[in-house]
Parts: sequence; C-alpha cells; structure tokens
Amino acid sequence: MPDILHRVGINAPVGKVYDVLTSIEGARAWWDATATGDAKEGGLITFFKKVDMEVIEAKPNERVRWKCVRGPEEWVNTEITFQLSYKQDQTFVIFTHANWKKPVEFMHHCSTKWGIMLVHGLKALVETGQGRPAPDYVQVYVGG
Amino acid sequence: MPDILHRVGINAPVGKVYDVLTSIEGARAWWDATATGDAKEGGLITFFKKVDMEVIEAKPNERVRWKCVRGPEEWVNTEITFQLSYKQDQTFVIFTHANWKKPVEFMHHCSTKWGIMLVHGLKALVETGQGRPAPDYVQVYVGG
Repeated sequence: MPDILHRVGINAPVGKVYDVLTSIEGARAWWDATATGDAKEGGLITFFKKVDMEVIEAKPNERVRWKCVRGPEEWVNTEITFQLSYKQDQTFVIFTHANWKKPVEFMHHCSTKWGIMLVHGLKALVETGQGRPAPDYVQVYVGG
Repeated sequence: MPDILHRVGINAPVGKVYDVLTSIEGARAWWDATATGDAKEGGLITFFKKVDMEVIEAKPNERVRWKCVRGPEEWVNTEITFQLSYKQDQTFVIFTHANWKKPVEFMHHCSTKWGIMLVHGLKALVETGQGRPAPDYVQVYVGG
C-alpha cells in the first residue's frame, strides 16, 4: 500500500516539538485552528469538525501515532506517524501517512498539503511562535 | 517500489504550465536557477550542476516525463512525471517521482522539498511571474 512520506528539520529541542504534537493547543496552532479533543495517548482529536484521529501512541520525545477513525473515506484506518530524532542541531520529524488503499488523485493532493502544513504549520510554529494552520494555510490549488 | 506523489492546482491555462516545464528558462525560474541544457523531448537538463534529467516524453499540454540519468545514487533511474489536466478552472499538475528502491529518509526529505518547490516554485511562478527556485527556496530543514 502506498504511503505519504515527509521530513522537516526544526530548529528546536525535541521536547518542544513533542509538546506541540501532544497538546490540543499545539494541534490548533499548526494544523487546524478548530481542533478539539485530547491529544494525549489514548485521546481523540477532532479536526475540521469531521475528522477524528485516535492517538494510538505518544512516546515522549520519540514518536506520536494517530489512527484516523472518522473522516474522508480514503483516510479511514490510515495511520499517521511523527517520528522524532535530534541530530545536526535540529529536531527532524519523519512523517508517514500510511495504509492508503490506492494512490488516488486525492492522495497526491494530501501529500502536497501535508508538506505545506509541516513546513508552514509545524516548523514555523515551533521556530517562530506563529504557524499557518487551517483555514489560513498556504493554498496548494485554487480553492484550498 | 514507493513513489513520491504530489498535486498542485495552478490558476493558468495548461499551455502556460506546459511551456514552463519544457523550457530551460522555465526550469531556471521554478526549480533551479543554475539549470542548463535542453528541456524539449529528447533533451537533457542539468540541475545543480550534478543532476542530469533526460526528457523522455513531452506531449504538448498533457504530460512531461524525465528520467534521472546522473545524480544522487537514490535518484539514478527514477522517473519524474508531470501529468497535466485542466478542470475546475485551473491546471492541475499530478506529480510523481517513481521507482525509488526504498523509502529511505532522503526520500522523505525529497518528498517535502518537491511539494515546496511545486507550490512556491512552479505554481507561484506561473501565477505571479515569480517563483522561488534554488538556491532561494523555502527551507524544509535547518540548512536546506
């Protein structure tokens, strides 16, 4: 099954990135300003009022994993992993959105959007205090 | 074998996008300001002074395909496809960088970088006349 892969390097300690990934305030500040719920292990985060991510793993300063349990048909049962590692004076986030059934056009769109959100959302937030979460994200097509 | 997938939607006629993808001036303005060579079908484009892309297909307003014949070990023999389609009042570029042997960390990096270059390089160039090709690209890690 095809996966979406990304990597960003963030000029910050790994703990700062981990904290953003495991708090609802962090989720609101990098990905979706409307996010609600609990971003700790075992919790459920609701994005865009219609996408539920179960936090299936949160290992401090190492790894955060979400499973999509409600959302676009193509996303249900897919898994998102943020693997953290500190090297070369920065925190690298190795991102995978795995278990897509097919490489449909929507998957291509999501891949680009994840890249933009990781760079302008997560990386920018941690480095500067200001990310560009939805709905004010950098557009990848005319309309979104 | 895993692929890198992306999609951007550009507010322009398909011919304008095709022209950028098949001219050396275009290559210099969206991806790498040092690009040299011939971007037409059968030509060879040299990026970053060390990556050679053979233009194995250029079908007007439909598709452009490159094969990497020199460059990073992981890139040699990989293929890049820009599939164009006009719909929803914009030109969609469905991008694939295919035939990677393994989903190595470098592949994750390249995926994010391609997304950034397609959005801030290609899309921005065609829509506004100004892209952010290398070396002035948006950084995805500290250092590049």
